[in-house]
Amino acid sequence: MPSAFTTSRRVEFRDTDAAGIAHFTALLAYMEEAEHAFLRHVGLSVHADGPSGIMSWPRASLQCDFEGAAKFEEVVDIAVRIQRLGRTSVTYGFELSHQGRSVAQGTMTSVCCQIQKGKSPEPVPIPEPIRKKLEPYVDATR
Amino acid sequence: MPSAFTTSRRVEFRDTDAAGIAHFTALLAYMEEAEHAFLRHVGLSVHADGPSGIMSWPRASLQCDFEGAAKFEEVVDIAVRIQRLGRTSVTYGFELSHQGRSVAQGTMTSVCCQIQKGKSPEPVPIPEPIRKKLEPYVDATR
Amino acid sequence: MPSAFTTSRRVEFRDTDAAGIAHFTALLAYMEEAEHAFLRHVGLSVHADGPSGIMSWPRASLQCDFEGAAKFEEVVDIAVRIQRLGRTSVTYGFELSHQGRSVAQGTMTSVCCQIQKGKSPEPVPIPEPIRKKLEPYVDATR
Amino acid sequence: MPSAFTTSRRVEFRDTDAAGIAHFTALLAYMEEAEHAFLRHVGLSVHADGPSGIMSWPRASLQCDFEGAAKFEEVVDIAVRIQRLGRTSVTYGFELSHQGRSVAQGTMTSVCCQIQKGKSPEPVPIPEPIRKKLEPYVDATR
Repeated sequence: MPSAFTTSRRVEFRDTDAAGIAHFTALLAYMEEAEHAFLRHVGLSVHADGPSGIMSWPRASLQCDFEGAAKFEEVVDIAVRIQRLGRTSVTYGFELSHQGRSVAQGTMTSVCCQIQKGKSPEPVPIPEPIRKKLEPYVDATR
Repeated sequence: MPSAFTTSRRVEFRDTDAAGIAHFTALLAYMEEAEHAFLRHVGLSVHADGPSGIMSWPRASLQCDFEGAAKFEEVVDIAVRIQRLGRTSVTYGFELSHQGRSVAQGTMTSVCCQIQKGKSPEPVPIPEPIRKKLEPYVDATR
Repeated sequence: MPSAFTTSRRVEFRDTDAAGIAHFTALLAYMEEAEHAFLRHVGLSVHADGPSGIMSWPRASLQCDFEGAAKFEEVVDIAVRIQRLGRTSVTYGFELSHQGRSVAQGTMTSVCCQIQKGKSPEPVPIPEPIRKKLEPYVDATR
Repeated sequence: MPSAFTTSRRVEFRDTDAAGIAHFTALLAYMEEAEHAFLRHVGLSVHADGPSGIMSWPRASLQCDFEGAAKFEEVVDIAVRIQRLGRTSVTYGFELSHQGRSVAQGTMTSVCCQIQKGKSPEPVPIPEPIRKKLEPYVDATR
């Protein structure tokens, strides 16, 4: 069974919408927050100084299924796994739930990029020290 | 060539992030705004009184590829098509661009639901008058 | 010295703007989140069943001075005091800081309202049991 | 009678909250958007190259009274006036209304700053060419 990193997040009032539940963009932001918390947990940062310029992880794609609602003040549990560790990218899998009931499931692919001032982000192979920190969270059963 | 509904949206300051570009959740919110503008355009509303209770269109799933950046004060053009008109759901396709350069492409599936007070939204077949208004925007080439 | 309720909040990426710091609306949302956390702390909720209908606390006014910046991933400490406990309203004072450096100071006045379905919120005197829970946090030195 | 700059903004779904109305932070963001639209209208930008570095207008303070609610899809009209044109700062007054009914009234003070890379923003006297463009909107009756 692969390791999962877990965190949680209370639904704040600004995250709700007129349907009385967390807006879908808030749920997606919770996934990004969990990704960043995971990176901090393994000793990395989403913006870090690399060997040649700033290293960052822009989002290339995402998909999400919304399976239930989360209401104001409910605590959403978030499980983060790595579904795929590519040469230059990481695909995260997220499971959002409230008291064991599924709220949303999604994936996001972030690309390891080197950013030099005045240029567009350039994808680079994930450096070996970073790869080593991510590997324990790769979902081997997929 | 299928009809597309088009609208546009300026990137506001609160939509930007520390990377200097529109945050991905803002781009997804622009897609939802375009969906609502499309529904108004064809004489519908995302929340409307139906024959038995309120009719609404909760989001069931989405996916998005991020292909470029949109910066503060840039105007994003949004094209909306219907990729699939199902029995109870609509899958919209969105193309976001700035001056002809792609920013993001995504799809969102919304389910036609009847909402009765105190109950969960229940999927219902899309009523015929609504279906007729949506059909001209179905992308027949897919 | 009056009691203060304190909480803290990490600046998430979606809260930042193209100036590289937490957007002012995010700082104000943190104040609201701290108000709600305070209400939970004293055993109340911002939406609660009262003797006759739902009791809620809509915001009537606010003011804020921005004194410093908070950046991505910085933890903002938030102190909440009650500056004035009126007959129908509470004026909260908020101090936001990062590592002892002031980020913002603000006040928000919330009005105790009874909400009956289909009607506008109606201000009502703060019920005695609620008043008793708020009194220890009134800033007597002001 | 002083000139006012006017614009308008539809309440989008992500701007609403579980109380069924535009969240207060959305109304404040509309004020900022109107300030930026006003600056574009008079030929300025909130971020512009000045004689020595970037010129920007960080927010120093604000206050707001919330006088009514704005619901999903309602169009909010926004009037912008200049309440005070100081040596280094501008205090804007905003009136938000829907169909003639007041939604919110607020003021925001923005400070003219020169930003040099790696340094904190430094307040500078508003350059004469900019001052000339702002003067017609100063509310002389106050």
